[in-house]
Amino acid sequence: MNIRMIVYMLGWLLNTVAALMLVPFAVSIYYHEDSGKYFLACALALFVVGFLMIAKRPEKKSFFAKEGYVVTALCWLLLSVCGCVPFYLSGEIPSFTNALFECISGFTTTGASILSSVEDMSRCMNFWRCFIQLIGGMGVLVFMLALIPLTGGQDLHLLRAESPGPSVGKLAPKVQKTAYYLYAIYFALTGLEIVCLCIAGMPLYDAVCTSFTTTSTGGFGVKNASIGAYSPTIQYVVSVFLFLAGFNYNFFFFLIIRRFKDAFSLQEVRLYVLIFMIAVLAITADLVGSGFVLEEGFRHALFQVGSIITTAGFSSTDFDLWPSLSKMILVVLMFIGGCAGSTCGGIKVSRVLIYLKTIKKELNQLCHPRNVKVIQVDDKSLAHTVLRSANVFFVIYIVLFTVSLLLISIDGFDFETNFTAVASALGNIGPGLAKVGPTQNFNLYSGFSKYVLMFDMLAGRLEILPLLVLFNPMTWRRR
Amino acid sequence: MNIRMIVYMLGWLLNTVAALMLVPFAVSIYYHEDSGKYFLACALALFVVGFLMIAKRPEKKSFFAKEGYVVTALCWLLLSVCGCVPFYLSGEIPSFTNALFECISGFTTTGASILSSVEDMSRCMNFWRCFIQLIGGMGVLVFMLALIPLTGGQDLHLLRAESPGPSVGKLAPKVQKTAYYLYAIYFALTGLEIVCLCIAGMPLYDAVCTSFTTTSTGGFGVKNASIGAYSPTIQYVVSVFLFLAGFNYNFFFFLIIRRFKDAFSLQEVRLYVLIFMIAVLAITADLVGSGFVLEEGFRHALFQVGSIITTAGFSSTDFDLWPSLSKMILVVLMFIGGCAGSTCGGIKVSRVLIYLKTIKKELNQLCHPRNVKVIQVDDKSLAHTVLRSANVFFVIYIVLFTVSLLLISIDGFDFETNFTAVASALGNIGPGLAKVGPTQNFNLYSGFSKYVLMFDMLAGRLEILPLLVLFNPMTWRRR
Repeated sequence: MNIRMIVYMLGWLLNTVAALMLVPFAVSIYYHEDSGKYFLACALALFVVGFLMIAKRPEKKSFFAKEGYVVTALCWLLLSVCGCVPFYLSGEIPSFTNALFECISGFTTTGASILSSVEDMSRCMNFWRCFIQLIGGMGVLVFMLALIPLTGGQDLHLLRAESPGPSVGKLAPKVQKTAYYLYAIYFALTGLEIVCLCIAGMPLYDAVCTSFTTTSTGGFGVKNASIGAYSPTIQYVVSVFLFLAGFNYNFFFFLIIRRFKDAFSLQEVRLYVLIFMIAVLAITADLVGSGFVLEEGFRHALFQVGSIITTAGFSSTDFDLWPSLSKMILVVLMFIGGCAGSTCGGIKVSRVLIYLKTIKKELNQLCHPRNVKVIQVDDKSLAHTVLRSANVFFVIYIVLFTVSLLLISIDGFDFETNFTAVASALGNIGPGLAKVGPTQNFNLYSGFSKYVLMFDMLAGRLEILPLLVLFNPMTWRRR
Repeated sequence: MNIRMIVYMLGWLLNTVAALMLVPFAVSIYYHEDSGKYFLACALALFVVGFLMIAKRPEKKSFFAKEGYVVTALCWLLLSVCGCVPFYLSGEIPSFTNALFECISGFTTTGASILSSVEDMSRCMNFWRCFIQLIGGMGVLVFMLALIPLTGGQDLHLLRAESPGPSVGKLAPKVQKTAYYLYAIYFALTGLEIVCLCIAGMPLYDAVCTSFTTTSTGGFGVKNASIGAYSPTIQYVVSVFLFLAGFNYNFFFFLIIRRFKDAFSLQEVRLYVLIFMIAVLAITADLVGSGFVLEEGFRHALFQVGSIITTAGFSSTDFDLWPSLSKMILVVLMFIGGCAGSTCGGIKVSRVLIYLKTIKKELNQLCHPRNVKVIQVDDKSLAHTVLRSANVFFVIYIVLFTVSLLLISIDGFDFETNFTAVASALGNIGPGLAKVGPTQNFNLYSGFSKYVLMFDMLAGRLEILPLLVLFNPMTWRRR
């Protein structure tokens, strides 16, 4: 384990966070808010520590997969602890556990909150809540990679550890260039949404915050009623950007370099669109059947499907009051999530695609045992290791889910609340159903359960492995 | 597809069922019950059809894995339809859907009922309910194999299709001998329990029925309050036999042939005992913490853990009233199930063992990429195909679970009811929680949902693949 190198990278992380904290500080100056001073204080402290840590460049730059996972896990832990300090110091979230929960929920783009009223927060703090979702969405290490050439050519280990999906598709031969493209598309979508929302009549501050949390599929908002507080037009605009946020970024990249055929033949994107459409139609039918007007039923179905499958977690209405089938569809979408190579959480559509193909292959093999076929996605054969790790991922996901469910059951809440709370945390969604439904919050849980859910949020964002590698004693054993 | 051979085997099945129906007929004569005549009528009709079907021995005896799955699936469908006729004709279960549900629940050893009061049934009908669990427990094809050499040496395809677990452990070099041993152990356990229950003070009729449904891990009973209607001593006796029913039968076989070391070193059995003990301890602690007396808490914990992990589904008390953690543990046990090579349903402990070893291997591989290890169970390396099909099984299990959950959600019941109803059907348990809890029954669901649950029960019993092969168009396509 190259400890010097890890410390060096964590130093850069602290500097990055410090620099990013100057943004909400600027917001506080604009709105003449006193609580902005905590951002400045934190930023200065982090700069001091950060510069001490990068003062000495490590001589040995060797950096392997193991280090990639460990650095990623440590980065995210450090990020969360540093990011929550302004909430805590300012007293706007008086409990440290709650401040940390809110911050992890932000960085992991979960959007689950312990606040009963976000409208009571100062503007700069609320901006920071939304801004950390923007940072966490595409990944903070990817962001650093786009700016600084950290390791001597082994950046791919970092990109792989932080990016979601069964295999990392590099958009460019060089990792740094890939990171740059990803962030360019990401910021372009965010900017476009800000413009559209302003045109649709949303105030600028709200539009900026909402766009940050849409493209990052985070789901924090500045209103207690989430997007339900705005006009139907605005709800449609957000729905469209949610829909887009669930796409694999390869799709946008192909569009930009004018390889339209490649873009529209991506199997994962096609399956995503198919699931999306079926879910919207089924929920619309279910809602209309239970008394909704067609337009209203369709709008809420479109919005909620977009919000849940992309794991953003906004709400346009209290879907906890919906009929069973609609709620059940949303719960299933919580597990599926958006495409790999997007900012979404969940198991990812590409893995679902792999699982479906695996089942089909197994059935065919039972009929024709001597007819061995290889599983292909987008006309490329899947490597055995990709298949295996997709399977292992599924098993670990369910095991972690089950263990978390057992642990938070100690608090004594009902099955639906606990089940959707863990599904929501692990899938980085935000709200669940029943006592953690869209009009409720997570403050009902004990401190212990909150830490379990925090672990789940981080595990969900990093796709579990980095955290398991970090806490695996084998990682730290000298050979 | 060797259709002639399939018809021939189904003919033997009908004859077997007809012969078995003479047993409840004898019971009806003993108790002077009129409704026994329906068993006689059915038996005669089945004999006629059965003998017509076996009149001509097929010339071509070739029989492959595909046929094995198809025959197994068809056998179980036919078995269910034939078995429910007496319930329906006698008017004791007036709806055909309900009669079929009760019968499939019986044969698959699920134990979920649509009856609001089993005590209102005639003794011969109730005996039939319990007797079909005894038949279904070890498998009706295995039973036929033990008696008749059906196929010319390709019996293993049948045994494999009907027996649970990732790989079929043959106890003897010949399949027929293996089937014979399995049934010998099975009947010995059942007989021993009858004796013990009678000594503990249970009436003979009750003891016979209860033993049938304990060793088969079925869970049907003759009292509305299930085993809760009997004394604590009886509850302890049933607990012990439930515990034993969850063991892999290889364990008992090793004991009989005095290979004690082999018996006690079976990794699956050790993991089963470990899970069992942890669950009992955790629930006892939870129950005592919520006001139970220690003995009572321990007794119900022991009984319910045994009843749920072996997927029998008896109840000694209304565990739906238990605190969240205890209920959640039971729900998790519903998915785990007992050992492979037992009569239990669920995913099976041996697969859980494989999944845990897979996770461990993946983590080690991340740390030491060049250090490739093969997964071993009981000092034997697992074949790649066993690993793959264990993974595929898990994925199919969850997919089928999810689809069923969506379909029965149309009825509009709450999440907990629907979730545990499907978990219970697919795992062949019996009761669930909330509206399908131990004091409730499954009659609240619509006909459509009942058919979904019937499919799940059959899929759970046959470990899904036979049904999927039967309904896969590819199976029936000529090449």
